[in-house]
Amino acid sequence: MSQQAKIFFNDLKPLLDQFQERLVAIGQKHQVPLFYEPIQYVLTLPGKRIRPLLTILANQTCGGRLNSALYPALAVELLHNFTLVHDDIMDNDALRRGQPTVHKKWDVATAILAGDGLMGLAFKKLLEAPEGDLLTMMRRFTDVMLIICEGQGLDKMFETQSEVSEEQYLEMIRRKTAVLIELSCELGALSASAAAENIERFRQFGYNLGMAFQIQDDVLDIMADESKLGKTVGSDWQMHKQTVLSIRLRRELRQKVDDLTFEEFKRALNETGILNQVQNMYRDFFNRARQALKELPQNESNQKLQELTDLIQNRCW
Amino acid sequence: MSQQAKIFFNDLKPLLDQFQERLVAIGQKHQVPLFYEPIQYVLTLPGKRIRPLLTILANQTCGGRLNSALYPALAVELLHNFTLVHDDIMDNDALRRGQPTVHKKWDVATAILAGDGLMGLAFKKLLEAPEGDLLTMMRRFTDVMLIICEGQGLDKMFETQSEVSEEQYLEMIRRKTAVLIELSCELGALSASAAAENIERFRQFGYNLGMAFQIQDDVLDIMADESKLGKTVGSDWQMHKQTVLSIRLRRELRQKVDDLTFEEFKRALNETGILNQVQNMYRDFFNRARQALKELPQNESNQKLQELTDLIQNRCW
Repeated sequence: MSQQAKIFFNDLKPLLDQFQERLVAIGQKHQVPLFYEPIQYVLTLPGKRIRPLLTILANQTCGGRLNSALYPALAVELLHNFTLVHDDIMDNDALRRGQPTVHKKWDVATAILAGDGLMGLAFKKLLEAPEGDLLTMMRRFTDVMLIICEGQGLDKMFETQSEVSEEQYLEMIRRKTAVLIELSCELGALSASAAAENIERFRQFGYNLGMAFQIQDDVLDIMADESKLGKTVGSDWQMHKQTVLSIRLRRELRQKVDDLTFEEFKRALNETGILNQVQNMYRDFFNRARQALKELPQNESNQKLQELTDLIQNRCW
Repeated sequence: MSQQAKIFFNDLKPLLDQFQERLVAIGQKHQVPLFYEPIQYVLTLPGKRIRPLLTILANQTCGGRLNSALYPALAVELLHNFTLVHDDIMDNDALRRGQPTVHKKWDVATAILAGDGLMGLAFKKLLEAPEGDLLTMMRRFTDVMLIICEGQGLDKMFETQSEVSEEQYLEMIRRKTAVLIELSCELGALSASAAAENIERFRQFGYNLGMAFQIQDDVLDIMADESKLGKTVGSDWQMHKQTVLSIRLRRELRQKVDDLTFEEFKRALNETGILNQVQNMYRDFFNRARQALKELPQNESNQKLQELTDLIQNRCW
């Protein structure tokens, strides 16, 4: 993490600690240990809590009180963790945040159940929100949960489909990643009973930030410094995961790119200018996110969101 | 199915057909086939639709209009199917309603996703309910979804626990089976904006019917005529599944009952009088369910619920 990032997260530590305390308390109901222990485990794994932070900062930008933001913030983090636990089974991933995944530490049955539980707890926490139009929040939350499932379905379909178009790929990451970031921001504004135009601007902010984040993530997977990334560079590429980079390069070279070595792949991305194009692409998304923030109330929380946008764009993780 | 049951379900055929049409329409959104096709498949498998029928008849007993009952009825059936799809993976069951389970017809990843989708769609349909206190319905629905997960967790725990008490077993079936039947009835009353005491009576009716149903189910597994049961007699027994029967017999004989042959087990249940005790036990639950109906508005729909209670008690499936 950069020095700037450390200062940013350190400033927010009291807030994040309070959030984490509430989050962990959710899994502490030990009447049925086989059900609550894996949930507890997942919720104590280290995480940056970007999504709930967006909810809280969006709420505060719109003049909300912390208490009104906490429940929607818990709900988005629980929803996010539900997707992680089930996706890890589907992708047969052994590690998450450097620790064994639930289905590896326990078994597939326990992990399915833990994911289901995280989903149910997400709805439960959202229903405890003390302010804002709760039915609108529930409807958006439910729709987004389904859109994320559709996104995961598209992702699975693309694994066996050799010719995915850029448009299809962008639609997939919109559903799988961007809508949850959009929802995190939107719920912040909704729980502050913000004006309709500010709710819409926070959707715009979240959507663009989410798209930027995912496209940049695909670039980092190829181009990052392994010691800084905190995970293996090229892991998406090794699994022949399609990204904007590989889709554009396949179109440019009019051939499959799976046969290239990792070094050849990187070189081709540089020489064709595709790396540059895609960096511009996510830069545009970041800038649209910043534009939305400019049209929202200017205050300390908005300032924090601008800083967070910068940190994400300059990240190496 | 008995002649009476045939007449009963035939009378309700127009209603059930209308329900089924709405149910199947939910899975017909084919934008992401890998996601919606398994959902569609599950929703078209034959089923008696007891739970949505309870919702609709409870609603109508309380003077509700069909349209107000349909969405909660769809929600409980979707919730039920979510549990079936995920439980089938956890139990590694190959057949459901005589057809391949989703994880056998597709794969585990697809079945996890289909279950998640059914869950999301359940919330979505409930949120479309046009009448009744929607937040109360959502809160109950969410709580019950979590209780069912806890019940499944207990069931899994008991698989490796040799000394389950009768109290623990009853608590498990309450969570795993009875609360959903209770919810089905309660949502019917809630969606008809019924008086508080009638909502409570419908909870009593559903809870007792659900407990009766499950305990009787355990007896049928041992005592039924295989040609009528429609599944293998003794399948729970073969898997050493604990039930009130096996728990009581173990206590009575002060020894494990797993070593008995199926015929010895049946004979011991008869000779010790345990079979008789347990038959009385579920008869009491059925009678408490009937008592609740007596205290509810007496009309044609209430009459149907009485008939349905009789049919369930006299069933051989």
